Amino acid sequence: MSLIVQKYGGTSVGSPERIKNVAARVAKYRQRGEQIVVVVSAMSGVTDNLIKLAREIMPLPSEREMDMLLATGEQTTIALTAMALHAMDMPAVSLTGAQAGIVTDGVHTKAKIQNITPKQVHALLDAGNVVIVAGFQGQTSEGQITTLGRGGSDLTAIALAAALKADLCQIYTDVDGVHTADPRLVPNARKLEEISYDEMLELAGLGAKVMQSRSVEFAKKFGVVFEVRSSLNDNPGTIVKEETQSMESVVIRGVSLDKNQAKITLTAVPDKPGAAARIFRALGDANINVDMIVQTASHGSGAPATDISFTMDKPDLLKARKVLDSLKSEVGYREVLADEKIGKLSIVGVGMRSHSGVAAKMFEALAHAGINIDMISTSEIKISVIIDLASGEDAVKAVHHTFLG
Amino acid sequence: MSLIVQKYGGTSVGSPERIKNVAARVAKYRQRGEQIVVVVSAMSGVTDNLIKLAREIMPLPSEREMDMLLATGEQTTIALTAMALHAMDMPAVSLTGAQAGIVTDGVHTKAKIQNITPKQVHALLDAGNVVIVAGFQGQTSEGQITTLGRGGSDLTAIALAAALKADLCQIYTDVDGVHTADPRLVPNARKLEEISYDEMLELAGLGAKVMQSRSVEFAKKFGVVFEVRSSLNDNPGTIVKEETQSMESVVIRGVSLDKNQAKITLTAVPDKPGAAARIFRALGDANINVDMIVQTASHGSGAPATDISFTMDKPDLLKARKVLDSLKSEVGYREVLADEKIGKLSIVGVGMRSHSGVAAKMFEALAHAGINIDMISTSEIKISVIIDLASGEDAVKAVHHTFLG
Repeated sequence: MSLIVQKYGGTSVGSPERIKNVAARVAKYRQRGEQIVVVVSAMSGVTDNLIKLAREIMPLPSEREMDMLLATGEQTTIALTAMALHAMDMPAVSLTGAQAGIVTDGVHTKAKIQNITPKQVHALLDAGNVVIVAGFQGQTSEGQITTLGRGGSDLTAIALAAALKADLCQIYTDVDGVHTADPRLVPNARKLEEISYDEMLELAGLGAKVMQSRSVEFAKKFGVVFEVRSSLNDNPGTIVKEETQSMESVVIRGVSLDKNQAKITLTAVPDKPGAAARIFRALGDANINVDMIVQTASHGSGAPATDISFTMDKPDLLKARKVLDSLKSEVGYREVLADEKIGKLSIVGVGMRSHSGVAAKMFEALAHAGINIDMISTSEIKISVIIDLASGEDAVKAVHHTFLG
Repeated sequence: MSLIVQKYGGTSVGSPERIKNVAARVAKYRQRGEQIVVVVSAMSGVTDNLIKLAREIMPLPSEREMDMLLATGEQTTIALTAMALHAMDMPAVSLTGAQAGIVTDGVHTKAKIQNITPKQVHALLDAGNVVIVAGFQGQTSEGQITTLGRGGSDLTAIALAAALKADLCQIYTDVDGVHTADPRLVPNARKLEEISYDEMLELAGLGAKVMQSRSVEFAKKFGVVFEVRSSLNDNPGTIVKEETQSMESVVIRGVSLDKNQAKITLTAVPDKPGAAARIFRALGDANINVDMIVQTASHGSGAPATDISFTMDKPDLLKARKVLDSLKSEVGYREVLADEKIGKLSIVGVGMRSHSGVAAKMFEALAHAGINIDMISTSEIKISVIIDLASGEDAVKAVHHTFLG
């Protein structure tokens, strides 16, 4: 008898009808003799409605009370899911995060899981129950209700799978798995049978949107093999696991395009020690996550000066401008140029480590398509370039065609 | 510095706007230097919506899962109420029933409070917070979430007031207090300044609807003085407390009319030992709460036989008929006559004990109004009569006029 943890997101449990579908899927696995732990999110729309209610009370509610409020969303779903299993004569018991033994730190709205004591989960499984656990939530060792922040339900599932030593963890979503590129952009994109944690991590950070990095990091750290698959059909999904030798034979696992980037260029920054440090310290202090940085020689006359360009998430652009304005007299640059019309195109693959000429091949593909490269950044298993946003989709197609057919 | 427990029902917290009003009232007391514990219900409509969701999943959901589901209603309100106090710069912390230390037995959907360990409530009060507690809910000593059933939030407030040794417990509702009669029926009905637990208990059992009997019983048992008052104005309400000598000088505290009664008459029941016992045992086993019972001589010929009439809550009528049908051959009565068009008119007052002629005065008042009396039942501090439903409102007016002006 194996133990499977299944996680269903908000869309999969978005109505009583859909909850019944989830129950039917769970029952099918259970009838094969598997032990099942189900992790569910709040029904789609519920969390947003709760946030709206809170905002009607005050613009910036206390994070402790937001956790108290939002935790009700998943608690509603677990009760309804247990009922749906009962309706199929399947023994099932729901547990809040706290009841499932999920202990977190006290950082409300983005708590970190500290440990899991799944005594009650084990006892209920051994008594023949399907156990339904509220995703996204836990409690501190002092009994305060906490939530785990974005992607929290995936994290609950993967952490529970680790604590329970589950044989498999299935993340059900509304896509069939991880693809070589976004199928809406590249019609001949293929679903991947498997992908390594590191490749998945790079893709998660590059706008692939299937999962948050933290859940993948957690899975990697504890060696939890998980499958990303669809709750709408029975197709096998993509298995995410530790890198294997066979994975290296594939040079490029996938291509992604992140349209949510913005670029700032500071022109004529005086070329003296500490200028760059001052700038990026101030941005860091303002919690602005800077991604790529390029420094080039400035072509002006006069004292030695450089241009510094960097990228960040689009929503941070305004905040970044404010920080830079306040630094102008201190650092002494000429002007701030902002560009929101950029895209970050990336290729990811552990095979890059053992194959040379990958970057050149990518740049050639873009050149052939007449697409100009603005900035370049590389890691061991990733190459990213900043291009004009308008060329983004053509670029994805060209690069996908070159590497993945 | 005194400690006040305030309870606000679902209508009083029915929208963000109303929750802000509650917060304003709480803040006013707090600013006087009082320590405040606020008990809130689910926002009006929320519990019904959750029940509807559950019914879409299955007709008769498990009671454990219903508790898991319904407990989210009050949890939502406590978070929003705490936020509303924060918006007024008032320190406030919300607690679920479990966090407030409310320990119940394991009878889901109608759990009984076993004990309260309000350590956390005390600590938060001492740190200067208003403490907001979710009404209607608790947890078992094994950590299962339970709810207390109808009127549960009142019970939470009164039990907390007892455990905290509060100086006052205020039950906020949408009426100004307890009246000598329903003001919609009797325009010159007066609000009572005070009423004894026993009188309140009789009124609660007689359709007065202000509060459930169990909360009043709990208050009586633990000597919790409480005030029933309106959340819509600042009028003083009605104080409910132990009987005092001065209360006895008032013969009648109030008049009530319960329109939710039905009567069954069994005709020609053979007059042999055990017949009545057999009938009422069977009704009791079916959980039908029989109220008044009258047995009269039957005017038929033949073997000795009697008519037996009894009353019950209207929703139980159908179930009672089924029980009686199944007994027909065994007990041997002639027919079952059912009457839903009855009303139970009652007068209540501890002064009855020391005043004679009260019943006669009530019957005369009804006779003058041309109203026929069908059945009579009395207790030490109550006289109830069954009358024709159509005469109910005239009867209330006539009796109120005679005793209370």
